[in-house]
Amino acid sequence: MTTEEKSFTHFNESGRAQMVDVSDKPVTSRKAVAEGRVYTSPETIERIESDGIEKGDVMGVAQIAGIMNAKRTSEIIPMCHPLNITGVDLDFEINNEENYIRIVAEVKISSQTGVEMEALTAVSTAALTIYDMCKAVDKAMEIGEIRLLKKSGGQSGNFRRGK
Amino acid sequence: MTTEEKSFTHFNESGRAQMVDVSDKPVTSRKAVAEGRVYTSPETIERIESDGIEKGDVMGVAQIAGIMNAKRTSEIIPMCHPLNITGVDLDFEINNEENYIRIVAEVKISSQTGVEMEALTAVSTAALTIYDMCKAVDKAMEIGEIRLLKKSGGQSGNFRRGK
Amino acid sequence: MTTEEKSFTHFNESGRAQMVDVSDKPVTSRKAVAEGRVYTSPETIERIESDGIEKGDVMGVAQIAGIMNAKRTSEIIPMCHPLNITGVDLDFEINNEENYIRIVAEVKISSQTGVEMEALTAVSTAALTIYDMCKAVDKAMEIGEIRLLKKSGGQSGNFRRGK
Amino acid sequence: MTTEEKSFTHFNESGRAQMVDVSDKPVTSRKAVAEGRVYTSPETIERIESDGIEKGDVMGVAQIAGIMNAKRTSEIIPMCHPLNITGVDLDFEINNEENYIRIVAEVKISSQTGVEMEALTAVSTAALTIYDMCKAVDKAMEIGEIRLLKKSGGQSGNFRRGK
Amino acid sequence: MTTEEKSFTHFNESGRAQMVDVSDKPVTSRKAVAEGRVYTSPETIERIESDGIEKGDVMGVAQIAGIMNAKRTSEIIPMCHPLNITGVDLDFEINNEENYIRIVAEVKISSQTGVEMEALTAVSTAALTIYDMCKAVDKAMEIGEIRLLKKSGGQSGNFRRGK
Amino acid sequence: MTTEEKSFTHFNESGRAQMVDVSDKPVTSRKAVAEGRVYTSPETIERIESDGIEKGDVMGVAQIAGIMNAKRTSEIIPMCHPLNITGVDLDFEINNEENYIRIVAEVKISSQTGVEMEALTAVSTAALTIYDMCKAVDKAMEIGEIRLLKKSGGQSGNFRRGK
Repeated sequence: MTTEEKSFTHFNESGRAQMVDVSDKPVTSRKAVAEGRVYTSPETIERIESDGIEKGDVMGVAQIAGIMNAKRTSEIIPMCHPLNITGVDLDFEINNEENYIRIVAEVKISSQTGVEMEALTAVSTAALTIYDMCKAVDKAMEIGEIRLLKKSGGQSGNFRRGK
Repeated sequence: MTTEEKSFTHFNESGRAQMVDVSDKPVTSRKAVAEGRVYTSPETIERIESDGIEKGDVMGVAQIAGIMNAKRTSEIIPMCHPLNITGVDLDFEINNEENYIRIVAEVKISSQTGVEMEALTAVSTAALTIYDMCKAVDKAMEIGEIRLLKKSGGQSGNFRRGK
Repeated sequence: MTTEEKSFTHFNESGRAQMVDVSDKPVTSRKAVAEGRVYTSPETIERIESDGIEKGDVMGVAQIAGIMNAKRTSEIIPMCHPLNITGVDLDFEINNEENYIRIVAEVKISSQTGVEMEALTAVSTAALTIYDMCKAVDKAMEIGEIRLLKKSGGQSGNFRRGK
Repeated sequence: MTTEEKSFTHFNESGRAQMVDVSDKPVTSRKAVAEGRVYTSPETIERIESDGIEKGDVMGVAQIAGIMNAKRTSEIIPMCHPLNITGVDLDFEINNEENYIRIVAEVKISSQTGVEMEALTAVSTAALTIYDMCKAVDKAMEIGEIRLLKKSGGQSGNFRRGK
Repeated sequence: MTTEEKSFTHFNESGRAQMVDVSDKPVTSRKAVAEGRVYTSPETIERIESDGIEKGDVMGVAQIAGIMNAKRTSEIIPMCHPLNITGVDLDFEINNEENYIRIVAEVKISSQTGVEMEALTAVSTAALTIYDMCKAVDKAMEIGEIRLLKKSGGQSGNFRRGK
Repeated sequence: MTTEEKSFTHFNESGRAQMVDVSDKPVTSRKAVAEGRVYTSPETIERIESDGIEKGDVMGVAQIAGIMNAKRTSEIIPMCHPLNITGVDLDFEINNEENYIRIVAEVKISSQTGVEMEALTAVSTAALTIYDMCKAVDKAMEIGEIRLLKKSGGQSGNFRRGK
């Protein structure tokens, strides 16, 4: 099936936004992985790294933000189903050559619908938190490359991002 | 003052995260503008455009998500101050050549602290909402270039992004 | 069984409010439909109709409010169980003779308890949103006839409103 | 100025919903009073009355719901400004002849915008709570006559509902 | 297995906080009971008792707070799983000899993880609410003895507090 | 004025709970400090200490929980006014002789009402978070001695806890 043959499922017959009815879909085990990056100045990256050792931990706060917002995705994104996710974890890698922090989030559930939005929301809000923690020294940071890496479970099939 | 001379203000003496004490800062009129992009396939962009005319409106839902989350930024970002913003608006532009939707958010307040995070949160959550509304037809979309464009008001001075 | 023979289940032995214990009830497929009306001046109705064509869409915003608040009913109504609803949709009809907008909301779930309150909350908050969007031109609007139309699933049996 | 000459302020130039910019409005002392009714069967009214004496208190729970939701109006109604209300109280009157409970809510603040929506939200959610507390004995209840009674403060002038 | 042999499960391999992955745990029927106390002056206890008869009911408000916060435990405690609890009730006992109010909360669910935190959160927030309702007459109150009494269901086995 | 002469301000004339009307109180600079303790086994304390050095940081998570819940106190405690606090910080001390962690929270604002509840909520939720992070190794922990230490600003005068 090509992209054009699929349809936007988030609009009802009147053309207004709806939360898709998943009442008749089976409960299956599902997982989604998403990633994103926060680009900073070289000085900010250095400071985040040394900070992680000496004192506080910018990524520690971002980790908690990502987890808490993954849990509340259905309040943040209007048409998302309320879901009780059973697992969420984030991972951070610092790239000193291109001066960015890569964020990866993985979310799991057994449910009638998937958790892509939960993984993307975890990444986005963790990135915003890094921005917030560092903005006193660097307002020119940029958040980018937020995208879905993998998705498994559910009738629409698996997804794996190409190169 | 150079970037290195500024300090991370979001950690207390024990090295733990803190909400910065702004009790003694003056109330001033503040504004922040942020932007971001959602890159899609050419087919998805076309569909969003035609959809906006015929039936529902992807950007209409994203607009509401951006506004509602700007209001709740202090619940989403752990160290943000609770603020009663007095104005928020978003603007969307479709770029048919590079296949992206550009989102711009402007937030206003009179307060002891700025609204950069509110503007960035409005943009990020509007972008996530566009992803959610279109993901049934396109899972490979990417969110990027989320950054602060302008900031005025407050003692740390104005900020305007360079080219 | 007459009405008098049933008992108020929302109070415990001490006479204080409780969230009813549904731990031993079976999970069944459930649905509820509720309705309500917003009465306006003839001019406001006209404006809402033309507005829906030319520019924004009052009911589009009300639709999103109804969906988002249906999801959060257990935070709004103190004794409601937290529930992950699987479907919610709203419908709006304009009555030009009696100058009102009729709102109908349908909510679905598989659960140990029903979704009447979710449907009624969707209708009520959609009605409040219409009031909010139009209050700059008409403060005398009135919200009424909020009631349950149908309920199916669950051991208390089905309900269908009479004439 | 007639109703027709006023404009819908909740849409921006693109025709999308916006939170009205009140940044330049003066802070003034404001108050709003709203009312509504819950119609029940005669048996339900009797039971609510005796219940209020012997054991729990349906209206006591509704009172708390009304107060808590007045505080969170800006999360419930998409375009409402976040506001720190300084006072809110509700009053309940039982009408035994027509079998309804009348709810009146009064909300106060010093702010750049009014609290009509806070008063209407307090009434609506208190009414929904009464429905929830009594629905085990009476599913045919109806909520109606939700409307603004008075509004003072602010540049749009005072409002007082006519007969 | 001794205490030392168990491990902190709330940290991932990088040493950052995580929401424990319970995706592969079986759904079982679970229950938790927790308790706590609010110590007041003798005059405050007297007033709370007489107040409960004549007018309002401090414990009635605390009961509702405990129930509402038990439902939202996963928003209050960062690493708690979102859960749809199926039952929650609180009980209050006044001890006139030692001048305290004892609060007991019981929470039930069928789930992959337990509800200890829900029961403890119900007790803590009910205690805070009692403090809030009485602080105009007694600021020296103290909250204490908040602890888990019983826990059943789940693979870590039952727990019952010793003397 | 003695304790007995003061009155419970959180009930209206009907005896129902109310949010006290502070509309006519002056805005003053206010501060509140509260404390509490989490008693654990000696092994748990040791583990928390070593953990704080090697890997994650139990108190780091508790700090964030305390800050986030201080900001949302008016959602957690039914009669609390919504407030935009301008500063909040927590401090943790480990007592190895009596095996407890002492938590101290300080909250600041300029407002018409005080922030005692915000400080007590920060302490209580930080304590619950420590319990949650450690409960896999120690379910018998106890939370206690939660109390107000100091309060300044506002017309009811300053408060300082005696020995």
